[in-house]
Amino acid sequence: MGVLRIDGGRLWQSLMQMAEIGPGVAGGNNRLAFSPEDDAARGLFRRWCEAEGLALSADRFGNQFATRAGTEELPPLLIGSHLDTQPTGGRFDGVLGVLAGLEVMRCLNAGGVRTSRPVTLVNWTNEEGAIIRPMMGSEVFTGALPLDQARAMVDHRGRRLGDMLDALENGAGPGGPGFPVHAYLELHIEQGPILEQAGEVIGVVTAGIGFRRWLLRFSGQDAHAGPTPMEARKDAMVAAAHAVLIADRAARALPGGRGTCGRIASPNGSQVTVASQVELTLDLRHEDLAQLDALSARVLGEIEAQCRALGVGFASENTADSPPVPFDPAVIAAIEAARIRNGYPGRRMVSGAGHDTCNMARVLPAGMIFVPSANGISHNEAEYTSPEDCAAGAQVLLDSVLTLAG
Amino acid sequence: MGVLRIDGGRLWQSLMQMAEIGPGVAGGNNRLAFSPEDDAARGLFRRWCEAEGLALSADRFGNQFATRAGTEELPPLLIGSHLDTQPTGGRFDGVLGVLAGLEVMRCLNAGGVRTSRPVTLVNWTNEEGAIIRPMMGSEVFTGALPLDQARAMVDHRGRRLGDMLDALENGAGPGGPGFPVHAYLELHIEQGPILEQAGEVIGVVTAGIGFRRWLLRFSGQDAHAGPTPMEARKDAMVAAAHAVLIADRAARALPGGRGTCGRIASPNGSQVTVASQVELTLDLRHEDLAQLDALSARVLGEIEAQCRALGVGFASENTADSPPVPFDPAVIAAIEAARIRNGYPGRRMVSGAGHDTCNMARVLPAGMIFVPSANGISHNEAEYTSPEDCAAGAQVLLDSVLTLAG
Repeated sequence: MGVLRIDGGRLWQSLMQMAEIGPGVAGGNNRLAFSPEDDAARGLFRRWCEAEGLALSADRFGNQFATRAGTEELPPLLIGSHLDTQPTGGRFDGVLGVLAGLEVMRCLNAGGVRTSRPVTLVNWTNEEGAIIRPMMGSEVFTGALPLDQARAMVDHRGRRLGDMLDALENGAGPGGPGFPVHAYLELHIEQGPILEQAGEVIGVVTAGIGFRRWLLRFSGQDAHAGPTPMEARKDAMVAAAHAVLIADRAARALPGGRGTCGRIASPNGSQVTVASQVELTLDLRHEDLAQLDALSARVLGEIEAQCRALGVGFASENTADSPPVPFDPAVIAAIEAARIRNGYPGRRMVSGAGHDTCNMARVLPAGMIFVPSANGISHNEAEYTSPEDCAAGAQVLLDSVLTLAG
Repeated sequence: MGVLRIDGGRLWQSLMQMAEIGPGVAGGNNRLAFSPEDDAARGLFRRWCEAEGLALSADRFGNQFATRAGTEELPPLLIGSHLDTQPTGGRFDGVLGVLAGLEVMRCLNAGGVRTSRPVTLVNWTNEEGAIIRPMMGSEVFTGALPLDQARAMVDHRGRRLGDMLDALENGAGPGGPGFPVHAYLELHIEQGPILEQAGEVIGVVTAGIGFRRWLLRFSGQDAHAGPTPMEARKDAMVAAAHAVLIADRAARALPGGRGTCGRIASPNGSQVTVASQVELTLDLRHEDLAQLDALSARVLGEIEAQCRALGVGFASENTADSPPVPFDPAVIAAIEAARIRNGYPGRRMVSGAGHDTCNMARVLPAGMIFVPSANGISHNEAEYTSPEDCAAGAQVLLDSVLTLAG
């Protein structure tokens, strides 16, 4: 251990070669899950893995597995991420985790290293959820979403996922490795600005953040903007503006809190009419469930009180709930030790976005490694992580694999 | 004077008969300017006026005039309003002013009263501006908008106004009465809650409020709602929310002030993304030009400072400017005297909405009479003014005509 070094140039070359499949319009990628481009990426992944002598398989939801045997009959260590992208996605989101896993396999092969446990590299199907809900591959793998139900779901164009998978050359297979699994490890770009702003290279992720989402509806009374005195108004726009600031202030006041109103609309709004209807989305996040509960209660309570004071009707529809997921202490410790051993500046941090690791961590030991995102930008073709940072992440992944696979 | 009494039943019957043309979906009216329904309303108006022996004419923009001769060759007194409605409009907005004017003519005829001056009843073309800009008929009449330019304008469907007018049976004519005009008088529903809430019947309007409008654009940086800490955000939604509350608070703090943000949008907004683009309309009003200027400077200045503090880009596009219009003291005095003589409770007040009277008042003596709007509702099919209040307004109009036409 410690003598195996990632080949950063080889990793970068693989990343750039994969980026040629499903190019975007601005230097990034458009490689939607279930698309011909996704199929091509899956094919390239398969051929690369076969060239390394890995045992290929795929399950009925199309999750691809490439296994390197261990010296003992033990549950495997899983590593990986996803190759699908957003329609205007980047070259690193997900892809880095899969191809860094491939680079780990190449290093192990080149170094002639035998691990006790099998190591299985996975490419999860439909992580991005651009055409239907996200992170379905790991959801099916852990059983949180029954396979038949997943294959029967239809996307935004009415296409059945099972049919789309079966139409791919590199889609569904008879089955992959099942449980038990020893642990799961995922390298991913941060998709936020924290590491870059701190001048750090490695984030040791301790938990997946919890989130709650609502659609808020404000109902006032439409009235002519001229003849209606201020004190006679029931202005849904003013109520919604208060809501945005209540969420923003409450999240700022709570360390680690996030509060976002990302979408707003005033159906039938007019520039000369006091607004009667405003719709607003609210997303609240925290890594601690009790704090998330308290934040949610505070924000919704303050909005309701403000609406009452304004005489504006208020209704909230809960559209999503995902509790925080703590990652595994042993996996965290292995990653942290690898970071320190390599001398990479970094920190423990929380994942603010959802990842397949969050699904996995609900049923088995799991952890994540973050590397910096330039300007914190992701889900954007301008997404970028330097070759050095990609290599650093892969090195920490390799060392963690050596620790956890024995 | 004082012996002529409005026939409230006859006025109400005319209002309800007119409301049968272009019925709405909820008890109101859909009688857009230039539409077949507008044409039918113009035809009924013409026939009613002819039955009273009035001299009919129409100008090249379709403004309809019905003149009752005076005993002397003097500039006429103009009275009237408009018969077109919003797509979901009411039965009284505009219509009351025209049909109360008709009721005045009927009373004068029935009483055998001869005025010194001619009295001309006018139905202005396209007051509502539902398909193009509003109050065009009076704008053309006063010369503020050249006739050829007005006829060449196209509506939101690309139809030339002149062509639409020429296609109507009761559209454009060779010409109507020109200048000089002695004065202009308009009875209209208040379209606000002030009279009703005070238990009053007659508003003596002293001025048209001034207004300024802007389209505000806030430009932040889109970022993932999870991984992006609150302190690293440039949130256009938060900036827009501040703007709404800045306008609301500044208008409340200024007696007679109005501040309205009626329409908002977050193009490409997502519930899990910090908003990068928000657009908001701003409408500020005051009856005093200096106060309107000060209010505008204060609101835009505070918004700009707030955006600077948030690191959010801010741009404002001025979309409309209309200075306040003081009405004529002699016309105001005639209306006020008529109100007091009839014992109607009321007050002097400002018109918060734009009206043809505002165009007229810029070039000749003009004034307005308001009657209550139930619940302050207008531009809504539920718009309502009681038969008693309609009759009271018509009585004040009649008495004012007798004063001003001699």
